[in-house]
Amino acid sequence: MKKIVQAIKAGESFAIATHINPDGDALGSAIALAMALESIGKKVMVYDRDGVPLTYDFLPGAEMVSTNAGELKADTLILVDCNNLTRAGLNDCGPCKTTIVIDHHETENDFGDIKWIEPETPATGIMVLRLIRAMGIELTKDMAQNLYTAISLDTGTFRYSNTTAEALRAGAELTDAGAEPGFVADRLYSNWSNNRFALFRLVLETLEMGDGLCFMKIPTEMIAAVSATQADTENFVNFPLLMDSIMASVLLKEMESGTWKVSMRSKGGINVALIAEKFDGGGHRNAAGCTIEGKYDDVKTILARELKNSGASS
Amino acid sequence: MKKIVQAIKAGESFAIATHINPDGDALGSAIALAMALESIGKKVMVYDRDGVPLTYDFLPGAEMVSTNAGELKADTLILVDCNNLTRAGLNDCGPCKTTIVIDHHETENDFGDIKWIEPETPATGIMVLRLIRAMGIELTKDMAQNLYTAISLDTGTFRYSNTTAEALRAGAELTDAGAEPGFVADRLYSNWSNNRFALFRLVLETLEMGDGLCFMKIPTEMIAAVSATQADTENFVNFPLLMDSIMASVLLKEMESGTWKVSMRSKGGINVALIAEKFDGGGHRNAAGCTIEGKYDDVKTILARELKNSGASS
Repeated sequence: MKKIVQAIKAGESFAIATHINPDGDALGSAIALAMALESIGKKVMVYDRDGVPLTYDFLPGAEMVSTNAGELKADTLILVDCNNLTRAGLNDCGPCKTTIVIDHHETENDFGDIKWIEPETPATGIMVLRLIRAMGIELTKDMAQNLYTAISLDTGTFRYSNTTAEALRAGAELTDAGAEPGFVADRLYSNWSNNRFALFRLVLETLEMGDGLCFMKIPTEMIAAVSATQADTENFVNFPLLMDSIMASVLLKEMESGTWKVSMRSKGGINVALIAEKFDGGGHRNAAGCTIEGKYDDVKTILARELKNSGASS
Repeated sequence: MKKIVQAIKAGESFAIATHINPDGDALGSAIALAMALESIGKKVMVYDRDGVPLTYDFLPGAEMVSTNAGELKADTLILVDCNNLTRAGLNDCGPCKTTIVIDHHETENDFGDIKWIEPETPATGIMVLRLIRAMGIELTKDMAQNLYTAISLDTGTFRYSNTTAEALRAGAELTDAGAEPGFVADRLYSNWSNNRFALFRLVLETLEMGDGLCFMKIPTEMIAAVSATQADTENFVNFPLLMDSIMASVLLKEMESGTWKVSMRSKGGINVALIAEKFDGGGHRNAAGCTIEGKYDDVKTILARELKNSGASS
């Protein structure tokens, strides 16, 4: 971290980029870091290829996030919550001379002049909080709300097995600084539209289970039938994990006829990232995704076999 | 709290009782306190009229909880997470000479020689943690797991609006002492049987909504139809609160023909405790219950009117 503190002090302008299809840890970490750097007089821009999804428009500073890679004119590029250009939706570093990576995703790639990667830390937001502390920057209410959201998202608001005492203590510190736990949880978990709830009821009807696994599907026409949106399917895959007997849950979403976007969630016994990687996808041990073409029943059979083999060997 | 510390030091034997239909805050607080007092050489027994539900049998020390009021032979009675004998399922204090109340529920009754009631504290578990600290008692892993569960239950694992920095900091301290956030969340939220999940799908089909309210029902025969149990209905009432448009959710469970056990949950705008009290029930602002007799549609109409009036006036 020392090298990053030095590089930030030395730099004048910073481009902060995070991963495509950004989640709360990506956006909260990137925005909080941008605010921190601005507060000490740096010129900062934030880039995400896909912009800020509706779920996260409550984040203070969400408007800082640009989807225009052409604006990334800075001396230093900082990748936050991702560790290579592809994942950040970028083709190159533009005019940036120095590249920094701050991330908690495991990787074997060697991108970045300065790399700070801690796979054992539950959220990138915790690393950004440590960086802000190390730089002696005053934590504002807006930074706190962003970092609280970041940590919440990646720990299931302190429910996942990655939740550490440090994560909880960070939550307390951020709450002291003005973060609002109830409000953030409300925005993350109680923001469903009535149409989304209707879609949820339909998706539950497709549930099939056995051998500790369960599968649900969303054919293309289902979303339109209840006037829901693609984003409305977020988190559905987690629900069957409520069942004691379920080790892993899979949701298959039909993107176009015969192309299935696969979301997999595990309680930890099965490493779903390894399975996603076999189909050119990726993710964490407990949450991963990929895209597979084929008939629903065939795709399901292939995945069930992989999950069973993986579960048996772990 | 000083008076309680003195009374505990002076006493030799303690009966700790908590409320009927106990939840995680009741049991976790009572068991942790019992362990703490035992660790300094006191004789302790724990009473709950209804015993430990299956959901909480993972709590270390759950076997300390007795359902036999006849065993309550002690010089001091401590009510934990409740503040009167009726709520504790007791007719009298037995041979106890001193009575102590440690609770975070609002009350106007005057039971208790020493009363420590803090309605603004999110969980009784936090008060017990403070007491353990104040007495200089070493926090064991087992006490920590109980108190972590207590705080988790009453803050929705740090998701409800009552979540404070103190609650999060307590969570961190308890995790340092050996509490397991992932395991506790798993036991609290991912312990559904397949039958319970089947019941959930049936209950969702009964959902009706409008005016920011929603109603679901569980007629007597529904539970048997999927071989579920009464306890399996816990938490169902919270699900519709996922919807942005829903201010309050009501679940009506038929106990016997024409007798409905009413569970109400609110996001805060409506004080459901006030409505429950009108029907001789009780609870918190955001979670309350009562029992009403009548036809389902009539009970629903009465409650909808009360909720609408309450929402309009708050």
